[in-house]
Amino acid sequence: MGLLSLEKIYDAKKVLSEVARKTSLVDSKTLSGKNKIYLKAENLQLTGSFKLRGAYYKIAKLTEEEKKKGIIACSAGNHAQGVALAAQKNNIKATIFIPATAPISKVEATRSYGAEIRLIDGVYDDAYKEAIKFQQETGGIFIHPFDDIDVIAGQGTIALEIVEQLPEVNAVVVPIGGGGLISGVASTIKQINPSCKVYGVQATGASSMYESIKEERRIELEHVSTFADGTAVKLPGELTYEFCREYVDEIVTVSDDEIASAVLTLMEKEKVVAEGSGALPVAAVMFDKIPLENKNIVCLISGGNIDVNILSRVINRALLKTGRISNLTIELLDKPGQLRDVSTIIASLGANVIRVRHNQGGEGTDINDCYLKISMETRNFEHFESVRQALVDKGYKILSSVQ
Amino acid sequence: MGLLSLEKIYDAKKVLSEVARKTSLVDSKTLSGKNKIYLKAENLQLTGSFKLRGAYYKIAKLTEEEKKKGIIACSAGNHAQGVALAAQKNNIKATIFIPATAPISKVEATRSYGAEIRLIDGVYDDAYKEAIKFQQETGGIFIHPFDDIDVIAGQGTIALEIVEQLPEVNAVVVPIGGGGLISGVASTIKQINPSCKVYGVQATGASSMYESIKEERRIELEHVSTFADGTAVKLPGELTYEFCREYVDEIVTVSDDEIASAVLTLMEKEKVVAEGSGALPVAAVMFDKIPLENKNIVCLISGGNIDVNILSRVINRALLKTGRISNLTIELLDKPGQLRDVSTIIASLGANVIRVRHNQGGEGTDINDCYLKISMETRNFEHFESVRQALVDKGYKILSSVQ
Repeated sequence: MGLLSLEKIYDAKKVLSEVARKTSLVDSKTLSGKNKIYLKAENLQLTGSFKLRGAYYKIAKLTEEEKKKGIIACSAGNHAQGVALAAQKNNIKATIFIPATAPISKVEATRSYGAEIRLIDGVYDDAYKEAIKFQQETGGIFIHPFDDIDVIAGQGTIALEIVEQLPEVNAVVVPIGGGGLISGVASTIKQINPSCKVYGVQATGASSMYESIKEERRIELEHVSTFADGTAVKLPGELTYEFCREYVDEIVTVSDDEIASAVLTLMEKEKVVAEGSGALPVAAVMFDKIPLENKNIVCLISGGNIDVNILSRVINRALLKTGRISNLTIELLDKPGQLRDVSTIIASLGANVIRVRHNQGGEGTDINDCYLKISMETRNFEHFESVRQALVDKGYKILSSVQ
Repeated sequence: MGLLSLEKIYDAKKVLSEVARKTSLVDSKTLSGKNKIYLKAENLQLTGSFKLRGAYYKIAKLTEEEKKKGIIACSAGNHAQGVALAAQKNNIKATIFIPATAPISKVEATRSYGAEIRLIDGVYDDAYKEAIKFQQETGGIFIHPFDDIDVIAGQGTIALEIVEQLPEVNAVVVPIGGGGLISGVASTIKQINPSCKVYGVQATGASSMYESIKEERRIELEHVSTFADGTAVKLPGELTYEFCREYVDEIVTVSDDEIASAVLTLMEKEKVVAEGSGALPVAAVMFDKIPLENKNIVCLISGGNIDVNILSRVINRALLKTGRISNLTIELLDKPGQLRDVSTIIASLGANVIRVRHNQGGEGTDINDCYLKISMETRNFEHFESVRQALVDKGYKILSSVQ
């Protein structure tokens, strides 16, 4: 048998047909190279992520008795929104505990689905403690974000859509946080098409499932650090650990810089917004972590709920890291015309100056300290190097260059 | 009859089936209110905009003789990419003139489709002059971006898809630059379903077609100013002017701030990237310029090619203009603990500080000039006002607040 029957997944599909979108599967001209790459756009799902599927199916399966008690969740992100909308659609009261450090945009989105919000000072663990306390007081039903068989079944419906949309699929690449998404997707795919590969992806700064599979026991990380906040989980679930052992072919990791590049590529080339976690599979493909050739690979874009302030920073980071924005600090002699000369050299090589800081001494600087700080758009690292070299050739002294 | 026969549009559809994507039509929960709003996602078209359609059909209709001469275009944006890919697919040489001020990302995208790029110093008009000179020297075929019946027919195929995807459509809202897109869409829709309304949208800073229709003659603007660069056209086409007179029900205008809000909403709520021009119809709907109720309205998102540096600025502008980022300058007495006190007041009201500048005198400042400049995330204007009032109540003097 298996850990989860196809019958249950098909039941979840039927239940979800009332509310969830069947999201589109698009082929990506930009990402395709040695493999043909498709994007399964769960960022275009209602609430902006796949989490609605698992939360809705879980809630739909509660008894009338349980539903009356109301439901409780703890999350700073996609799970909160998924639970809130699922509760609204089922006419159930939802109380959601959110750490007060969460971006306002995410809190407001959750509130907009009619949930009662409890903002708790501190981080996730503090909010979680309050949620459990509240659960014990009220007897409400706590909806776990991943380690629950109904939640996993709901996420598995994505795999049914993938095999329907692309019967010739050879591999699916899936982000892993707690492991609920990949548990549902992998168990479904492997039962329908055992030869289809399933790869998991984690951020190097939050690779709890990767470590656990390697060590053959559940490993709890002391701390997690990645801007892919949706997958920053310290300890894999008990159930999800078993699913990963059973069904996942390999887990790979990507760095935050690789994730940022993937977010930027999805925006610039595919015109879709993915959050860090949602871009993990694309990062794995772009940076050659998936050992396949001439295959049809589906990257599961799990969500698009990235705070726009963070998005701005991610874009800037990715532009710097790919040589498309470069910063130069040039020492100047305090004589006229140098700003003009430097600008001319840069422009003649086709770089675009986007920011200038011209310092001719002042508070805290040496009296002779005169420099020009330039941020410019360049095509790539080689292009930047040609600009730098041209300035050196004209006798300018480069104090620092940051890429 | 009409200015353009349905037979020709259906011919274009047949020709385009080889290359163009049939883009998805998605209902928007967020934008729907007094009307049901759908988004026709031409930003997800190959090359990132609808321009591929017109360019490809035009080129496919050239004689073998003409094709051998090669084609020429002048554009800093979507037309360049559309022509380049269309030429590549037809195995024709394309020479594209681009003003050197164009963002590097757009130049590189055009180059990636195999076109020869001529970067011309100056603005669009300078590049255009060079393109015409080159055309006269080589006898190549100049592909006009909008004032050409084959180009218009290609754009009209979008309307065929809309009526197929949403037979109950009551209105289509379309961006206008030169007018090629709306000419094709409006003439097609009106021949299939004469009761369907067609609205055009222009930026207030580039409203040449709006002015022309009002004055009943083609008006050339002295200058255009909008960040929606794809629709910044000084003079409507002769053909497209006639199409708009004949088929467009009304043209409305939206400000750059309204466009920025629409770009942000599409990113945050719908998880898609639209350029300024592509967001014009959503801006018109969001700010109530379309005089309809209880109707099915399709907003045509014409393209998604926005330079990421510009996108960052647009996001910041929109956050400021909607009260989600606020800046405060507060006068401080130079005594300890004030930074802590101010931070405490702000945090207690649920605003998030994102940037602080603490000035305790220095170059160019009065010796007593001690101030705190704070940027913070707020929910909306009312939320910001509550923070400001709380600081005033505690005796702080607000030197300025910028929203």
